[in-house]
Amino acid sequence: MFPRIAELLMSDEVRRIHEASLEILENVGLEVANARARELYRRHGCRVNAENGRVTMPASIVEQFVQMVPPKFTFRARNPDFDRTIPDDAPLTMTASSAPNLIDPTTGEERRTTSEDIARIARLVNELPGIDIFSISVLADDAPPGQYSLTRFYTALKYCQKPVRGSGDPGNDSQSILQLAYTIAGSEAAYKDHPFITHHYCPVISPLKMDEHSTESLIFFAEQGLPSHPTVVPNAGLTSPMTLVGTLAQGNAEFLALAALTQMVRPETPTVYASLSTVADMRTGVYAPGGIECGMLNMAHAQMARYYNIPSCGYIGLTNSKLVDAQAGFEKALSCMAGLLAGMHVLQFVGLIESLLAFDFGMAVIDNEIALMLKRLARGMEMSQDNLALEEIAEIGPGGMFSTTDRTLRLMRTGAFLPEIADRQPRQSWASRGSDDAQTRALQRARKILSQSCEPLFSPEIEERIRGQFAGLVAGDLRPLETGA
Amino acid sequence: MFPRIAELLMSDEVRRIHEASLEILENVGLEVANARARELYRRHGCRVNAENGRVTMPASIVEQFVQMVPPKFTFRARNPDFDRTIPDDAPLTMTASSAPNLIDPTTGEERRTTSEDIARIARLVNELPGIDIFSISVLADDAPPGQYSLTRFYTALKYCQKPVRGSGDPGNDSQSILQLAYTIAGSEAAYKDHPFITHHYCPVISPLKMDEHSTESLIFFAEQGLPSHPTVVPNAGLTSPMTLVGTLAQGNAEFLALAALTQMVRPETPTVYASLSTVADMRTGVYAPGGIECGMLNMAHAQMARYYNIPSCGYIGLTNSKLVDAQAGFEKALSCMAGLLAGMHVLQFVGLIESLLAFDFGMAVIDNEIALMLKRLARGMEMSQDNLALEEIAEIGPGGMFSTTDRTLRLMRTGAFLPEIADRQPRQSWASRGSDDAQTRALQRARKILSQSCEPLFSPEIEERIRGQFAGLVAGDLRPLETGA
Repeated sequence: MFPRIAELLMSDEVRRIHEASLEILENVGLEVANARARELYRRHGCRVNAENGRVTMPASIVEQFVQMVPPKFTFRARNPDFDRTIPDDAPLTMTASSAPNLIDPTTGEERRTTSEDIARIARLVNELPGIDIFSISVLADDAPPGQYSLTRFYTALKYCQKPVRGSGDPGNDSQSILQLAYTIAGSEAAYKDHPFITHHYCPVISPLKMDEHSTESLIFFAEQGLPSHPTVVPNAGLTSPMTLVGTLAQGNAEFLALAALTQMVRPETPTVYASLSTVADMRTGVYAPGGIECGMLNMAHAQMARYYNIPSCGYIGLTNSKLVDAQAGFEKALSCMAGLLAGMHVLQFVGLIESLLAFDFGMAVIDNEIALMLKRLARGMEMSQDNLALEEIAEIGPGGMFSTTDRTLRLMRTGAFLPEIADRQPRQSWASRGSDDAQTRALQRARKILSQSCEPLFSPEIEERIRGQFAGLVAGDLRPLETGA
Repeated sequence: MFPRIAELLMSDEVRRIHEASLEILENVGLEVANARARELYRRHGCRVNAENGRVTMPASIVEQFVQMVPPKFTFRARNPDFDRTIPDDAPLTMTASSAPNLIDPTTGEERRTTSEDIARIARLVNELPGIDIFSISVLADDAPPGQYSLTRFYTALKYCQKPVRGSGDPGNDSQSILQLAYTIAGSEAAYKDHPFITHHYCPVISPLKMDEHSTESLIFFAEQGLPSHPTVVPNAGLTSPMTLVGTLAQGNAEFLALAALTQMVRPETPTVYASLSTVADMRTGVYAPGGIECGMLNMAHAQMARYYNIPSCGYIGLTNSKLVDAQAGFEKALSCMAGLLAGMHVLQFVGLIESLLAFDFGMAVIDNEIALMLKRLARGMEMSQDNLALEEIAEIGPGGMFSTTDRTLRLMRTGAFLPEIADRQPRQSWASRGSDDAQTRALQRARKILSQSCEPLFSPEIEERIRGQFAGLVAGDLRPLETGA
C-alpha cells in the first residue's frame, strides 16, 4: 500500500503473543460444543476431554495447520468487475453488519429493521464508490418463518452488484441460501465457479468457547469449498483480560483454533484473520467499540495476521455515539486511520452508529467519504520526475502563482480529493445555503439516491424461478423514498 | 513512541526530495526582502543578486549549515513541570493559533476576538490535561496602539502555566515582550536561564519569498539565543505545484533556507521543522486544510525532518467545517492519527475550526479528548509477562467472566482510556439526559471551567511592576463566564 506501515509490537513481541496463544491452546484449550468439530480436532492430533468437551491443542498441530492457510482471499461479486482480492486490492472498505435497528431516513427516529431497509441499503452501497463490500447491515423483522437468512441475502443481492457478505446457519436455512445463489447464477456449477456470497460467522464466544451452529456453518462451507471466514470478538474486562496484550493473546488463540479447524476440514481453505476486539468501559460495563483501544487491538491483530501471512480484516472505525456528530466523526476516523496505516486489508466500519446497534443512511454517506480519503492516502505521494515539477517551480519563480499553469489546469479535478459532504465554502456562502451540518448534507445525498426509481438486478425470469422455489418470500421491492416538498 | 512508524516515502524518495530541494535553492533561490538576511547568506557563501534580492544557495553550503541544527528542542513553561522536549516527550499537542474570530461561548455567534478571549482560552488550556503547548489561539482587537503582541502574551501568560508560543515583531513591540518576560521571571538573567516563551514566525511567503519583518524576528531571536522557530506554508495549486511531491520539494527547500539562516546567525540554534502544507480546492480556489492531502504532506514533512534529524511539528488535524459536527470530527481525526503514526513530534490542531479562522471552546474540549486518545495509543501495547495474564486466562477458563478478577478491579479506571465527552450510554439513558450531541457536552465542560473564578498566575507585586512599565495595558481580567440558569 505504501512504503512503511505502522506497528505497535516489536517482532519479538509478535513471537511472544504467538507463543502465549499456543500456550493457551495447549494448556487451557477451548470448550467445543459442536461434535463434528471435536471429532475433527481429535482426528488431527488434539486431545478431547469427553466429559466437558474441552479440546486442547498441541502447539505443533496448531502451527502445522495454520501454515496451510492461503495468503490471499477473494471477495467475489455478482458483477465480476467488483471482485476484490486481499492483500492485492487493499485497502478495502466494508459495511459493518447485522444491526437490529435503523435511524429512519424520513422521520429520524430509531426503529427495528425490515427487508425493505436491506434493499435500500443495498442500493445505497451499490451507488457509493468508496464502499467495496456489502456485509448485510441490518436484520429483517418481516422475514417469514424459516426464511430469515434467505430474506436478507435475497434483498441484498437484488440491489447490490458488489460482493455480499453475511451469515446463515446450515441447521437453519443456509441450504436455501445456496439454492437462491444457484438460481441467480443459473446453476450450481456456475455459482461454484464464481461464488458471489462470502459467508461469515463468529463461532467463538469469548473466552474460549466454540458454539454449535456457527461452528457447523464454518465446517459446512469449508467442505463445500465456498468462501467463508470467522471473526473473533474478545471484550477486555468482561470476556478477556483487562489488558491489551492479554486480550490480544486470547483473541489470537481463538483465531488460531478456528483457522486450524478450517484446514482440518479441507487444507488450503482460504480464510481471513478478522477481529472485533474491544474494551469494556468498566465505569458501567458498557461495550466501548469507539474507544481508541479497539483501534490499537485491531492494529495488533493485523500485525499478527501478517506474521501468519493471512489476509486481515478488522471491525474498526466504530462509534458509541447515538448521533452522527463530532463524536461519531472522531471515533470513527481515529481508528480507521490507525487500521489503514497498520496495514489492515479490510476496514469494516461503514454505516453503523450506537455501538453497532443502528444503521444510519447519513453515516454511510459520510463513511463513503472517509473511505475515499483513506484510499487517496493509500495511493501515496505519487513520486515521479514530472510530479516534482522542478521546471515549473523555476518558471513561476519567487512570488509567482501556480493557479493557471498547464499542470494545475490538467490536475485541478484529480490532483486533490474533492469531497462532496465536507463543506469548504467560506462561512457566508455556507450560511446563505442554510448553515447545514455534515449529517444534514449526507442525509440529503442518501435521500436523493433512494428517491430515484431503481430496477432489480435480477431478470424477470430469475425472479419468477426464485418465487417458484420459495413460497411466501418477501416482495423485496424497492419503492422510491418520498422526500417531501 | 512505538516500534514502527508509518512512512509515505521510500528512503530513495526522501533523498530525491532532498536533492530536488537543493536544486531549487541552487538554481531558483529565494527572493529575500530582509537586508540582514541577504548579508548573512552572502557572507556564508551564497550568491546574492543585488538587483532583485534573489539569493541562490550552493548545495554544499545548505547541507553544511542544516547539519548544525540540534536534534532536540525544548518548549519551556513558566512552571518548569510543564517543560516539554521533543523528540523525548513526543507526541505533544499544541493549540492552533492566531484566528481572527471566535464562536462566542454564550451566544454561539461568531465575532472578532479580544484580550479577554485570550485569557479565557489560556485558562481552558491550563486546565485541559491533553494539551501541552499554548500557541496563542486568537488575535486581540482591543490591544492598545503599539501593544498588540504585548497584549496577547500578557493575557496568555497570566492564566496559563504551560509553554506559550506566539509571534511578535522586533520592529514592532517584541522588545516589550522581552521586558514583560524579564519582569515575570524576575530579571533578564533569570528569564534567559529558563525562557518560557517560544517565538514563532512564517518568514517565507510561498513560493520562495522571504519577507522583511518575520525574517528580522527569526534573526533577532537566534542572536539572543532565545527559542524560536519558523513554519513553512505552501498551498498546492496556488503557491506551489498542484502535486504532493512538488509541494513537498518546494516547502522543504523553504524550510532548508530558513534553517540554514538560523545557523548562519548562530550555529546550533535549536529549531523545529514545522509545516502547514496544504492544498487548494481548485473548484473554487478555497483553502482546504481539512483535506487528506494536508495530512499526507505533513506525514512526508515529518519524514524529511527525521532525515535531517530535526524535531518536527505539523499543523495537522484542521477542518474546513464551520461547526463542530461530524465533518470537524473526521477531518481532524484522520490527519491527527496520520501525523501521530508518521512520527510527528508536535501535532498542532487544538481549538480552531473554519480553516483556521475561528476558535471554538467546545472544539478545544473535544480536541483535548482526541489528544488524550492519541497519547494513549502512543504508549503502545504495554507488553509484559504480567500483562499477558496467562494464569488468569487459565483460571477463568472457557465461558468465564473477567469482570471481577483482581486485575480487572485494579485496572478498571486505568486499563482503558475513559472519555469525558464521548458518550457511551445506551440510547435510552442518553436520551433521558437530553439527547445531547458531543459539542453540547463539550461546551458545557468548557463553560463549567470558565464559570469558576480564577486567580492570575502573577503575584500582585509582579502585576504592579508590569503596570508601571506599560501604561495603558489592557486589564487582562478573567471574569467568570455567566452560565445562565
